[in-house]
Amino acid sequence: MSLDGRYDDQNIFAKILRGEAPSVKVHEDAHTLAIMDVFPQAPGHVLVIPKEPARNLFELSEEAAEKSILAVKTVAAAVRRALEPDGVFVAQFNGAPAGQTVFHIHFHIIPRREGEEIAGHGKAKMADMPELEALAEKIRAAM
Amino acid sequence: MSLDGRYDDQNIFAKILRGEAPSVKVHEDAHTLAIMDVFPQAPGHVLVIPKEPARNLFELSEEAAEKSILAVKTVAAAVRRALEPDGVFVAQFNGAPAGQTVFHIHFHIIPRREGEEIAGHGKAKMADMPELEALAEKIRAAM
Repeated sequence: MSLDGRYDDQNIFAKILRGEAPSVKVHEDAHTLAIMDVFPQAPGHVLVIPKEPARNLFELSEEAAEKSILAVKTVAAAVRRALEPDGVFVAQFNGAPAGQTVFHIHFHIIPRREGEEIAGHGKAKMADMPELEALAEKIRAAM
Repeated sequence: MSLDGRYDDQNIFAKILRGEAPSVKVHEDAHTLAIMDVFPQAPGHVLVIPKEPARNLFELSEEAAEKSILAVKTVAAAVRRALEPDGVFVAQFNGAPAGQTVFHIHFHIIPRREGEEIAGHGKAKMADMPELEALAEKIRAAM
């Protein structure tokens, strides 16, 4: 899907935001929801999803963008405290050719460790659910 | 360099912000400077640099984070209008193991084209300066 087009409210993040699909939550405020990525590129991979229906950064309102980066800061800090990675990669993909796979804007927070490669975006294996929940619990405790 | 440590005001972006080193500017406001990346991962690769001295997202103030994401939105929209890419990748690296090479926080805006791989971060070739200036001129005109 290119950068043009229409927001589809049946995308998986829209369903999660409406409570119609399950997710492993780590943080929520009035403007954003943060959940564990079920196809983590590295252990502790979290997604920050603005609640505003927008496909990408171009469509997102300025206010929602501000609230999103504050949530990214908050969640990334909790990920850092909880998992003590050597680095943290923040990424946001706009359009399928840029790597976007769900067409509701989201920010990736990916812990990085010295000497460890991360799985390619869209090529990662599905997470083991008990492991994902244990990581989420650690991150929530550090929030 | 890990996530811990001290801000070094001799880093290249600090020098650019002080006007002590050259850069190809595309946008500037009270809080941020946007310049062409001289080692572009794809043509039109722009960096948004907060003026606040902070090594990473953890050190950056909330206000500077808000101003930065607004600048990223503005510049990414101009890149889109100017170069008509199929997608736009936004990335922000914290710590050397996450890919950070200059220890003053910055956001990457990288145009993506269908079927075109981007050069690895830190593996890109130095840009041809007249080409870089021509791309910058297009982006400035679309701002």
